[in-house]
Order: sequence, then C-alpha cells, then structure tokens
Amino acid sequence: MPVANYRLTVQYDGTAYRGFQLQPEGPTIQGELEQALLRLTGEEVRVHGAGRTDAGVHARGQVVSLTSQLTIPVERLPLALNSVLPRDIVVVGAAMAEPEFHARFSARGKTYSYTIWNQLFPSPFWRNYAWHLKEPLDIQAMRAAADQLVGEHDFSAFQASGSSARNPVRTVSRLDCRQEGPLVLVTVTANGFLYHMVRNFVGLLVAVGTDHLSPEDTSLILAGRDRTQAPPTAPPQGLCLEEVHY
Amino acid sequence: MPVANYRLTVQYDGTAYRGFQLQPEGPTIQGELEQALLRLTGEEVRVHGAGRTDAGVHARGQVVSLTSQLTIPVERLPLALNSVLPRDIVVVGAAMAEPEFHARFSARGKTYSYTIWNQLFPSPFWRNYAWHLKEPLDIQAMRAAADQLVGEHDFSAFQASGSSARNPVRTVSRLDCRQEGPLVLVTVTANGFLYHMVRNFVGLLVAVGTDHLSPEDTSLILAGRDRTQAPPTAPPQGLCLEEVHY
Repeated sequence: MPVANYRLTVQYDGTAYRGFQLQPEGPTIQGELEQALLRLTGEEVRVHGAGRTDAGVHARGQVVSLTSQLTIPVERLPLALNSVLPRDIVVVGAAMAEPEFHARFSARGKTYSYTIWNQLFPSPFWRNYAWHLKEPLDIQAMRAAADQLVGEHDFSAFQASGSSARNPVRTVSRLDCRQEGPLVLVTVTANGFLYHMVRNFVGLLVAVGTDHLSPEDTSLILAGRDRTQAPPTAPPQGLCLEEVHY
Repeated sequence: MPVANYRLTVQYDGTAYRGFQLQPEGPTIQGELEQALLRLTGEEVRVHGAGRTDAGVHARGQVVSLTSQLTIPVERLPLALNSVLPRDIVVVGAAMAEPEFHARFSARGKTYSYTIWNQLFPSPFWRNYAWHLKEPLDIQAMRAAADQLVGEHDFSAFQASGSSARNPVRTVSRLDCRQEGPLVLVTVTANGFLYHMVRNFVGLLVAVGTDHLSPEDTSLILAGRDRTQAPPTAPPQGLCLEEVHY
C-alpha cells in the first residue's frame, strides 16, 4: 500500500487523560490513538491534533491527521478504531486528505464551548463537564463584556503566564454567552488561540457576571496586555473543542 | 435533641455504585449516605430510599427518609452532607417530615426516564447515561406501542424473571417517547414498578421501534403475562429516577 494522508474527527471525554499531547507519564488522547493504530495496523503512526487540549478538557470535534500505509478502507476506519479504543474516545469520521493537509497547521480557526453549571448545588452529572458556580450570573453584563473581546486584538492579557506566543494577536470572530436552563454556555470562535485563552476569557466573563468587574473594565484589561491584571483562569472541565475550521 | 424524621432529595450518578441498597460488597448509595451521616453526626443512621435503583442506574430526584437526633439545622443539611459525600452523590434538598413519613411506603408513584443515544457512533459523553442504538428508531411506532401499556394492567410480562411481586398489577399513568436531536427519551410514571419494569418496557419499545415487533404485538405480550415472550431488558445506564410523587 502506498503511504496516504488521513483525517479523523474524534470526540473524547478528557476526564481520565492528561491532555491530548503525548506525556512521559499518564494516558493521553494522542497516546491512545497511536496505540489503537498500532494494534490495528502493526505500524507506528504519529498523529497530529488540531488543538492540544489540556488535562480534563473535552472534544466533540477534534481533528487529527496522520500519514500511514493503512490497508483498511477509510470508511471502515472509525468502526475499526473504536473497537480497540477506550470507550471515552470515539472516532466519528475518517477521510482521505490531500498530501499537504495537517490537522494543526492547515486549520483556519477553531470553535470552543465552555459550560457553567449555575445552580446552588453542584450536579453529579455535570461535575466533569462544567464549572459549578452558585452565584447567579448576569448574562447581559457578560455579553457586554464579550462584545469588547470580538475582533483583532493583542490578547496578551489572556495568555497563560509563563507561556508567550511569538505573536499574541488573534482575531475572535464570535464570542457568545447564553443561558440554557441551569447552564450558562460560552462559545468562542477565533483564527487561533493563545494558551488558556478561552479559560481566561471565561474567568473575566464570570468576574463581570458576578459584578466583581464592570463590562467596561474589559477593554482596559485587554489594552493593558498584562495577565496579572485579569481575573483567574476558569477550570478545565468546562472546556470543549467543538469544531476545527479549514 | 429529640428524634425527628427527615426527608432528603438526592441526585446521583450511579456509574460507580452497586445500586442504591446496601450490599455486602462494593459501594452503594445507601452506604455512602449512611457513612456521610455518621461522619457528620457520630450517629449510626439508617436511610430509606423511595426507589432501590440498580447498579449503574441514576437519580435526579431520589427521596430518602431517616430518623435522627441531628443538631444541624435542616436548611444547612445539604451543604453539610455534600461536604462529606463523594462528588457523584449530591443532596439537593432537605426538610423535616411528619413522623409517619417513609420515603418508600409513603410514595404514591414515581417517574423514571430512559435515555437512548440513537446515532451511528457511540458518544463518549453519553456512554454512562444512555443506551447506544445505531438503528434509527421509529418514534411513531414506539408511541403506538407505549399507548397500549398505559392504564391498570397485570404487568407480569415486564417483571424480571425470578422476581415475583405478590400483586403484579400496576397503573401506568404516563408513558411518553420523544426524540431530542440524537437522543430518544422515554418517560414513565406509575403508582409502582415491578422489578426491571421500565427497562423491560424500553426493551419492548425498541423492538417495536426497530420493526422487530409491530405496535399491536404489545397488547398480546401484555395479556400473555409471560416474561419469556417479551423482548430483552434494556441496559441499566439509560435509566434515571426523576421524581417521587407523594
């Protein structure tokens, strides 16, 4: 078989993993996918994820690319991989890709969601999929703050301290907040994300939604480009990679 | 403190438990609640659940009664218990109850839901909360079958083989099937339930929804009162005790 380039769409519950990217210790999504491919094909395959999600972060639309000499027809690949993957990782799509396709470098943008369980008591069903906040959130104020983050900006104030992208300018094309019963959902689309950018956005939106900051503070924090002046990072379990745009 | 009677409302993710009822081996919901009360009060308290859910079955509205000499004000009880309970069991309500109140014997009825993930591929997020069925379900046919189970009937055909209630007659006041995106939800309210009754209803509804039985077969199976003539039991993880009616 000639070598070909493949593109997989993968969903996972990140609770039990140390993130997407291979780690010396502990299970990772990348590690499980590479092990599944090894078991299936006998071939050592390197997979590339579009988003290197952190420990406890989930995905409903992670995209993975790999180059392999697979003998399995591509349409049977999801079922074959799922038969050897753990139940918290599911391949939901597979296609041949152009030779130059790379899940991460070909991406034009990504959409993440962040879920907040906004009730007095925590939920046993959302404990691994949402941030529990008992203070009622002011969605209107959160929307007013979110609007100020949309557009092309230097997002240094929302980049994890210690990390530094060569260029901290990104374009946020969408940042929505909405209430759905007991949940508050934040959805963000951008052409790229700095490390912890979504979780830092949510930290700010929650500070505004609980009246610790006013919506107008958002522009000042953004303009200050200083991480230490922005509210703390939201916890990982509310975050989910929804879609990768090519 | 005088002895008083209490009523708790409890939610739990049953995945990690061997069911509600105390077992010689393995953790149970009852066991965790009694341990939490012991840690909190130093008192050995027996709790009674309205529904003795099986291993892997969940609850959003389990009701538990107990008699105790609690010194904690009842309004602080949920927070206090949640601080010592595992995160997959959450007390969401507590109230003083009449001395004669008993969670199980005072119940006039219960409502259960059953969730089916009806998509080609399984979902990592629903793996512990739904039955995965890839064949598309005919909801209209399932509704026609469900209608024949509503009312007062001898439900022997839907009682787990091996178990035998003294009186197998129950009144089902509601049995709904509805589609919500990728999910099919079955909701059942009855004045009482035979062992595995909901899961056996769902087994039949799925046999009808996948065209292995016609809706009209339902009345024949019901009238036959023979468990061996009805389709297999649906798996536990889709089942959730939603509400107890008093």
